[in-house]
Amino acid sequence: MSITSAKKLRIAVLGLGRMGKRHARHVAYNVPRAELVAVCDPVAATEGWAKEDLPATAKWYADSTEAINSPDVDAVLIATDTATHATLAIQALQAGKHVLLEKPISVDVKKAIPVVEAAAAHPHLKTMIGFSRRYDESYLEAKRRIDNGQLGKAYMIKSATNDQYDPSGFFIAYSKDSGGIFLDCGIHDIDIARWLLDVANPSLLKNPAKQVTRVYATGLNVRHPELAESEDCDNANCIVEFENGTQCTFHLSRTALHGHDCFCEVFGTESKLVINGNPNMTRVEIRDEHGVRMESTPTYYDRFKDAFVNEANTFTACVLDDLPVPTTPSDGLEAAQIALGLTHSFRAGKPVFFGEDGKPIID
Amino acid sequence: MSITSAKKLRIAVLGLGRMGKRHARHVAYNVPRAELVAVCDPVAATEGWAKEDLPATAKWYADSTEAINSPDVDAVLIATDTATHATLAIQALQAGKHVLLEKPISVDVKKAIPVVEAAAAHPHLKTMIGFSRRYDESYLEAKRRIDNGQLGKAYMIKSATNDQYDPSGFFIAYSKDSGGIFLDCGIHDIDIARWLLDVANPSLLKNPAKQVTRVYATGLNVRHPELAESEDCDNANCIVEFENGTQCTFHLSRTALHGHDCFCEVFGTESKLVINGNPNMTRVEIRDEHGVRMESTPTYYDRFKDAFVNEANTFTACVLDDLPVPTTPSDGLEAAQIALGLTHSFRAGKPVFFGEDGKPIID
Amino acid sequence: MSITSAKKLRIAVLGLGRMGKRHARHVAYNVPRAELVAVCDPVAATEGWAKEDLPATAKWYADSTEAINSPDVDAVLIATDTATHATLAIQALQAGKHVLLEKPISVDVKKAIPVVEAAAAHPHLKTMIGFSRRYDESYLEAKRRIDNGQLGKAYMIKSATNDQYDPSGFFIAYSKDSGGIFLDCGIHDIDIARWLLDVANPSLLKNPAKQVTRVYATGLNVRHPELAESEDCDNANCIVEFENGTQCTFHLSRTALHGHDCFCEVFGTESKLVINGNPNMTRVEIRDEHGVRMESTPTYYDRFKDAFVNEANTFTACVLDDLPVPTTPSDGLEAAQIALGLTHSFRAGKPVFFGEDGKPIID
Amino acid sequence: MSITSAKKLRIAVLGLGRMGKRHARHVAYNVPRAELVAVCDPVAATEGWAKEDLPATAKWYADSTEAINSPDVDAVLIATDTATHATLAIQALQAGKHVLLEKPISVDVKKAIPVVEAAAAHPHLKTMIGFSRRYDESYLEAKRRIDNGQLGKAYMIKSATNDQYDPSGFFIAYSKDSGGIFLDCGIHDIDIARWLLDVANPSLLKNPAKQVTRVYATGLNVRHPELAESEDCDNANCIVEFENGTQCTFHLSRTALHGHDCFCEVFGTESKLVINGNPNMTRVEIRDEHGVRMESTPTYYDRFKDAFVNEANTFTACVLDDLPVPTTPSDGLEAAQIALGLTHSFRAGKPVFFGEDGKPIID
Repeated sequence: MSITSAKKLRIAVLGLGRMGKRHARHVAYNVPRAELVAVCDPVAATEGWAKEDLPATAKWYADSTEAINSPDVDAVLIATDTATHATLAIQALQAGKHVLLEKPISVDVKKAIPVVEAAAAHPHLKTMIGFSRRYDESYLEAKRRIDNGQLGKAYMIKSATNDQYDPSGFFIAYSKDSGGIFLDCGIHDIDIARWLLDVANPSLLKNPAKQVTRVYATGLNVRHPELAESEDCDNANCIVEFENGTQCTFHLSRTALHGHDCFCEVFGTESKLVINGNPNMTRVEIRDEHGVRMESTPTYYDRFKDAFVNEANTFTACVLDDLPVPTTPSDGLEAAQIALGLTHSFRAGKPVFFGEDGKPIID
Repeated sequence: MSITSAKKLRIAVLGLGRMGKRHARHVAYNVPRAELVAVCDPVAATEGWAKEDLPATAKWYADSTEAINSPDVDAVLIATDTATHATLAIQALQAGKHVLLEKPISVDVKKAIPVVEAAAAHPHLKTMIGFSRRYDESYLEAKRRIDNGQLGKAYMIKSATNDQYDPSGFFIAYSKDSGGIFLDCGIHDIDIARWLLDVANPSLLKNPAKQVTRVYATGLNVRHPELAESEDCDNANCIVEFENGTQCTFHLSRTALHGHDCFCEVFGTESKLVINGNPNMTRVEIRDEHGVRMESTPTYYDRFKDAFVNEANTFTACVLDDLPVPTTPSDGLEAAQIALGLTHSFRAGKPVFFGEDGKPIID
Repeated sequence: MSITSAKKLRIAVLGLGRMGKRHARHVAYNVPRAELVAVCDPVAATEGWAKEDLPATAKWYADSTEAINSPDVDAVLIATDTATHATLAIQALQAGKHVLLEKPISVDVKKAIPVVEAAAAHPHLKTMIGFSRRYDESYLEAKRRIDNGQLGKAYMIKSATNDQYDPSGFFIAYSKDSGGIFLDCGIHDIDIARWLLDVANPSLLKNPAKQVTRVYATGLNVRHPELAESEDCDNANCIVEFENGTQCTFHLSRTALHGHDCFCEVFGTESKLVINGNPNMTRVEIRDEHGVRMESTPTYYDRFKDAFVNEANTFTACVLDDLPVPTTPSDGLEAAQIALGLTHSFRAGKPVFFGEDGKPIID
Repeated sequence: MSITSAKKLRIAVLGLGRMGKRHARHVAYNVPRAELVAVCDPVAATEGWAKEDLPATAKWYADSTEAINSPDVDAVLIATDTATHATLAIQALQAGKHVLLEKPISVDVKKAIPVVEAAAAHPHLKTMIGFSRRYDESYLEAKRRIDNGQLGKAYMIKSATNDQYDPSGFFIAYSKDSGGIFLDCGIHDIDIARWLLDVANPSLLKNPAKQVTRVYATGLNVRHPELAESEDCDNANCIVEFENGTQCTFHLSRTALHGHDCFCEVFGTESKLVINGNPNMTRVEIRDEHGVRMESTPTYYDRFKDAFVNEANTFTACVLDDLPVPTTPSDGLEAAQIALGLTHSFRAGKPVFFGEDGKPIID
């Protein structure tokens, strides 16, 4: 990263939940070209946290409108509850602020469309979706290898996101608002598949509107039978076929035992890649009565912390250097459409086809 | 293996193609309790091979009826062209001989049924299907771990059989008679999934007749577009749901680059197993300008040679000690039914459901 | 890391060679509690680099005395040529500045002693040696496991530092001033062994002055026969026995082919650890005609970049929070004594014993 | 293996201890060209074992002279107590029988010399030493790669034999007669190093009599302090320098926790090999609360069973086809000399040099 300008991007982080706090710290301490000028959360206790953990330059707000409209703020990083993502993103754009928006745009695909439109209506502002996995060094290396031809033609992705089993049941309560396993857990897999299989690049598609042919999903409730009530599951198998002749499978799960296991195979005609075959936490291998072993990253954040930092740096560079953002609102919308199709397939027990408008045909 | 009887099983190997020759050598040299008394192949050149490579006690026949009916033969190992499997198996049973039959029983499921019936009609004779993968030490270890409860409840299998890409096109010619990728390449995956997920054990099923709920398959022709003519493909993704609430996915392919890659993940509520994460040929790792690497087993036989030997020993013990065979004609029939359902799903583009009789419902 | 004070440590980086530039960037962009206020290098071209790559707050100096004496500087990070380390460190301490000093203190052990003495004479100033490997997350994890008893008693280390072969011969020219392979390449291994085997903790030693019993070294010139002139080698095997009954071996080499390979085994009575069994660059595994492979970190910096950042953060915290530094001048001196003993053993062809004063007995 | 003759080699196995029983079964059931015609052990109980586990053709003897002199015996495999190896081997040669002799020839190097002489005096008889590790597929693959130039020049071996810790103390009692850790545990490492570094091939040496320049060894008693009485240790580090400019290190241990760990690195100028980086028992990887892990081979035999079988087949082929044996009495003698030198170095605390006659100079 070469820094050609002394100007710094002044960022406000909206939402100081678990991820919001992390984003705030990344912006404050790991993004050389940005300055954390504001954080915002209606929960009063977050003010004390901000005072203790963040630089004095980061002003705390309880009210998001105030934070967004502050003249000291150039850009907002939205890490609030998903239900508020779309509204805040549109509000920020209308206030003339660049936006880095945590995924998903919305659990309701319809509500994501206005965000795409607002972004299009403000072309001088950057609107970037937080598909953090794309900013991971290993996924980037895979993309580089595809782009420089080392895989021949990349034709298939097999991706798995297996969250560690949480016996506390926290996830169940959260499930109803999360959009279900296909959206909540699968959206990164969907985005990565679109990206690595050249579906995310409109210039490579015959009809950019229609990216998917057909999707199919099945599911199981292994540990959380109560998910059946909300027509959700804790293990899902998916097949997605794209219009460009490639296809992918996903295994989504909430029941991994050793840690967070996020695994991806990329099949090309000349080479195959495996990303994160062993989700090791460090480079330490243990040899004892349990055999030869490595301990796994317990959570998504342990696995992808550096990707989040890279994401924030990339967003900052896109704004300061006026570059196109790698993960666009359209990417967010398309991924959500696929998640919606998969959810419907799982519930209806049959394949879901996609129309010429790119939407899943749900009868 | 403890040998309690001096009696040896006298085996005839029918068919001296590539696999038949291997079977003949295994029986001759690696099965202490068996004696290779006969081999049979109509191709004249095989007589010379047998003379040179096999013990003098192994008599060569051109005619299979003669070999089967020889009073010196207790059992036949049938490794002929698939088209002749069923006929020869029935003929051998009728002649009072034990049978070890290479998979599949037939590419035409209907022709497999008489074999199942003939085996049932000769309960004093052993009829075993050559599902070699079940006799591999690693798959056996997985089964032991499931059976002794170390996985909790095994609920899902993800299996892949990826054959090395063969630019010679040999496979294409062979494809038409092989029953297609779902039967030819997938039958071991299907059998392993049934076995590890307790579908193959009738005593654990509510209705042993109906084992499968629904199957779905998609495919791609990455390297062999000409396969479209025979409605086959060189890469396939499958989802199979079993009546007992478990499910499995398969990725079948003819386009692996590094070797034969046969990979299996077994998901349990308490533990997950990965079999053959790295299909290494030996224990030698190389560190050079290509990085840190291991070379892969080029073929199925390189990977499973010891399993074939174990299979022949197990068959021999089943006969001599009057034990039930682990891989029955029913296993062969059920696996074929599933392959048939997957093939139909792939061709029709929709899920295929299974009836109460256990057959795929093909309209 | 919790930041309890708004105060920032103002650091000057002395020396803008390859590593100095990296240190400057780390301090500027990756050390939240520090500010890079000055950089210094007599080479005029470094001024332009600093302007372009560093924040405007970092003032460039050609003269180190000026930089050290600047009232804006609280601490200096010394990354100059090794020959100047000792002099600059003493000068900085005398000027009342904290010191983070790149290893080794000096190629001449005698010149390291005044640095240890100067540090002792300025107990209110922090003097820390840049044994970066100790700040790597995997080595820290090993240390934690030892300290919490998971290894039982750690009794042996087998460590290897194998640099990638550089056909340019750059290393040869550099070799004469580097102190030879035992000091230049082995000092980290020595330090890590002392640390993990509890030799670096004086409170655990009967006689902190005498840490080593005996050392022995052999060598080979595989690629660089010209090293014989300077009594150096490009592959060395070492055995070091410590007074506390533990021992370690090192394999130092300049001839690795796949990248920089830095490997460490820690043997305990209850568990063994292997650090960096595969020096993979990313989590991407490639499967192609070369087998199943991962590409290696090409250089020490690729492997340990995060450790350097952690080191700079740790130094900053030690100063701001008045904590003892983990890597002291004594550590630097003791490691150099061992390297000297190994060098002498290699040259003399016999074991070198250590005296009660802790120095190798070189007759 | 192509069998060109119907003739079978009639082998007698002498000694039916743990390894002798295994050898007997290998010869009986896994060596197509051999016939087990006799077994011999003074312990009466072994007769019953032989009856139950071996073919009826294998006659049991209590007296070794009878077994050796039986006209039905072409060759003897000597797996008795080490103390009797030399005497029995010479007796067998004098009786005109081929000999496959378990290593070591003797714990007393002097007693090994008459065996070398007896073998030389009977050039028409094959005398092969059971250096089983050389017959392992992975070590053979390494040798092939060296011989066909893929490593460039192989210049260094780092080998480790770490036996699993046996809390029963069985090993202690055994230690006094085993020759100590350098001979008992290290002889395979020594042999492999000689072989892979071209020291075992006299035609490649300037002076075949003098193969070693200097050896050095240190040791620790981590678990077995009582070994000090017999001047033995349970962990040893060794450096051996060969006359041809190559060198090797060994780490021998009795205190591994995860299983039997036999690890070898082969350094070449163009490539490095690592053999058995993970001593996995099967291809099953487990993912559970202990992380991602594989279980290890518990014993040497679990790791090398196939090598023992290959060894017996190779010996048989050498006799039947009149080929030179790969592991000669000279190999046994040279390895023992090196073990003797290492033992002396460990005890005397200094390097041991070797004389022009190839013997360690022990003053």
